[in-house]
Amino acid sequence: MGVKKTMATFADRMQHIESSGIRRLFELGSQLSDPIDLSLGQPDFEPPVEVQEWAIAAIREGRNRYSPTAGIPELRAALANKLHGEGIATAESVMVTAGASGGLLLALMALADANTDVYVPDPYFVAYPQLIRLAGARMIPIDTYPDFHLTPERLARAVAKADPKRRRLLIFNSPNNPTGVAYEALEIRRLAETARELGFQVISDEVYDVFTYETPHVSWLRTDPTAVLVRAFSKTGGMPGWRIGYAAAPPLVLEQMLKLQQFTFVCVNTVAQWACLKLLETDLTDRICDYRARRDFLRDQLSPRFGLIPPSGTFFAFPSCPADPERFLRKCLEKQLLVVPGNVFSARNTNFRISFSAKPGPLGRGIGILNQIAEELQEE
Amino acid sequence: MGVKKTMATFADRMQHIESSGIRRLFELGSQLSDPIDLSLGQPDFEPPVEVQEWAIAAIREGRNRYSPTAGIPELRAALANKLHGEGIATAESVMVTAGASGGLLLALMALADANTDVYVPDPYFVAYPQLIRLAGARMIPIDTYPDFHLTPERLARAVAKADPKRRRLLIFNSPNNPTGVAYEALEIRRLAETARELGFQVISDEVYDVFTYETPHVSWLRTDPTAVLVRAFSKTGGMPGWRIGYAAAPPLVLEQMLKLQQFTFVCVNTVAQWACLKLLETDLTDRICDYRARRDFLRDQLSPRFGLIPPSGTFFAFPSCPADPERFLRKCLEKQLLVVPGNVFSARNTNFRISFSAKPGPLGRGIGILNQIAEELQEE
Repeated sequence: MGVKKTMATFADRMQHIESSGIRRLFELGSQLSDPIDLSLGQPDFEPPVEVQEWAIAAIREGRNRYSPTAGIPELRAALANKLHGEGIATAESVMVTAGASGGLLLALMALADANTDVYVPDPYFVAYPQLIRLAGARMIPIDTYPDFHLTPERLARAVAKADPKRRRLLIFNSPNNPTGVAYEALEIRRLAETARELGFQVISDEVYDVFTYETPHVSWLRTDPTAVLVRAFSKTGGMPGWRIGYAAAPPLVLEQMLKLQQFTFVCVNTVAQWACLKLLETDLTDRICDYRARRDFLRDQLSPRFGLIPPSGTFFAFPSCPADPERFLRKCLEKQLLVVPGNVFSARNTNFRISFSAKPGPLGRGIGILNQIAEELQEE
Repeated sequence: MGVKKTMATFADRMQHIESSGIRRLFELGSQLSDPIDLSLGQPDFEPPVEVQEWAIAAIREGRNRYSPTAGIPELRAALANKLHGEGIATAESVMVTAGASGGLLLALMALADANTDVYVPDPYFVAYPQLIRLAGARMIPIDTYPDFHLTPERLARAVAKADPKRRRLLIFNSPNNPTGVAYEALEIRRLAETARELGFQVISDEVYDVFTYETPHVSWLRTDPTAVLVRAFSKTGGMPGWRIGYAAAPPLVLEQMLKLQQFTFVCVNTVAQWACLKLLETDLTDRICDYRARRDFLRDQLSPRFGLIPPSGTFFAFPSCPADPERFLRKCLEKQLLVVPGNVFSARNTNFRISFSAKPGPLGRGIGILNQIAEELQEE
């Protein structure tokens, strides 16, 4: 029979949603024969053996059916306990999510719409602009160059020009991807006070909470219990492919997020839920020490020409390009080195992201190549 | 410090999105001491042992990191092969999704917006109205009582009153939840022809494809390669908690769905992906025979007072209430029997859903109670 040609018309929103710049790079990199990949967004370690064993036991013991929407009660109780220990008032109001991305999607769909301005410190995580567009809201980047810190002054200045009738959301991200900046307790307290005065609802993306190298992580929610907390197990535990994280929020907000989870994610992979119950008991100090050593190496070895703000968290650094970014990044590719262009994370195109989750060998070689390029460009 | 009260304002869409009626029942049921639960939406079997072993091997062999957005190439190739075998032209254009719900969400967000009417045969899967509202579109139910078949005539009649400027989507669902109707090849061909003439883009929800008892399943895409196919492994394989399914669509549509998957689901649980590669090779005939026997038992034992259309697929039946539905369902609850009220799936409130995925013991007792209630109500 006659069949019409593929003539699908897409939803309007699809015009504004773009493919990830990191993914384009990933595809470019897959054409290189043996690249040094410092573009990675995941740790290089595997889940702890005891966590693997809990996952395996869950499969064998028949924990393969739907869980409650919010997650298995055992994991929620353990999370409530952990969050209490961090001084978070809404600790009991916690749900399991499909990674931090799952939590962000639910929070934004519940809180943001066409009448909402979502403020985002720039540089920002690549998915924010897309998630904000999906929710139908408007993103307002707040420039934080050159030190990459959101300050009360910068926040107030951003709002000064804003339409007072529009709802205000802020996505706060500490430790920050891509800059590696981890905020300290006092900074957060001052920021939260200003955010409250300016009428912001805050979503705190703390996906890199365990990856801090100077002072222990402090949650935004310790100061502001009205905020939505979003975290992941995936990066912490070395199983980003398992798609598991968690979110905490005031009960009325969590209720909305749960309503959305019911018919979208339905529940989080139950095997991963049981395994993460074990992960919460696991000491990850060795892994963090290892990453701190790589951070130190990067900070010490990278030529001052790159003007690096030393990362205090995550496994990313965001140095500035020592020459015209296009030219610099082409040189990197020529030498089979993959880093991520700064404009993937920012309205500016002056910096680039390196991941120090790469093994020490490639990391050392990659930094060597970067220094060599910086020298060549200076000599030209 | 002073902290403002929880005063989150929610996105407008949240006013129109409701909690699942099945979930409310689930909570009601959890207060009963020892209910006979015929409200279940998942099979009673576990994943085949060899599938469990593949999942376990995947964990141990370090397959715990991100997969490509569309899924691991091995699983996509196996799926393409399977779909080719079913005569589906877009077989190569396939992605792994987080269950059928994941596929539906991506398809609707890519294809439906405020300018779209989404037609849905009524009775329908509970999540459709919510997913359609989330996409900002309008749902138009098409009444299919009393035989529960969408016909070309019913489709044409539904459209006759429609605004011709609005985009038209149809969610076709065979085998159908909650009615158990599985459409035959000729029916689908006639329907697809009419849908094409009327300018419909179709999403074919085939989540119960393996659960057919009269004739083998026929995909809508065999006739209409412009449609989006949505299926799940979860129900088929006995691991709904793993959250894995797949979608096929014309390349341009799949591209849009992949763009959305990148920053929402990111990828599907990688352990489940490896295990489902094994599931595709596994013979599930015994399980389906078992479910057919339960279907036969239900059909033969349920009193004619319930006016049952015998299900030809899924593990659901949708009999009509033998008296006032409120009164009938209250009687069921009094006798500790859980079934799902019909108005959860429909604009009408005349029927109820039973699942025959319950074990033969409870299924038999449940049907006994239903017949007893029907008798009591007739005597009154």
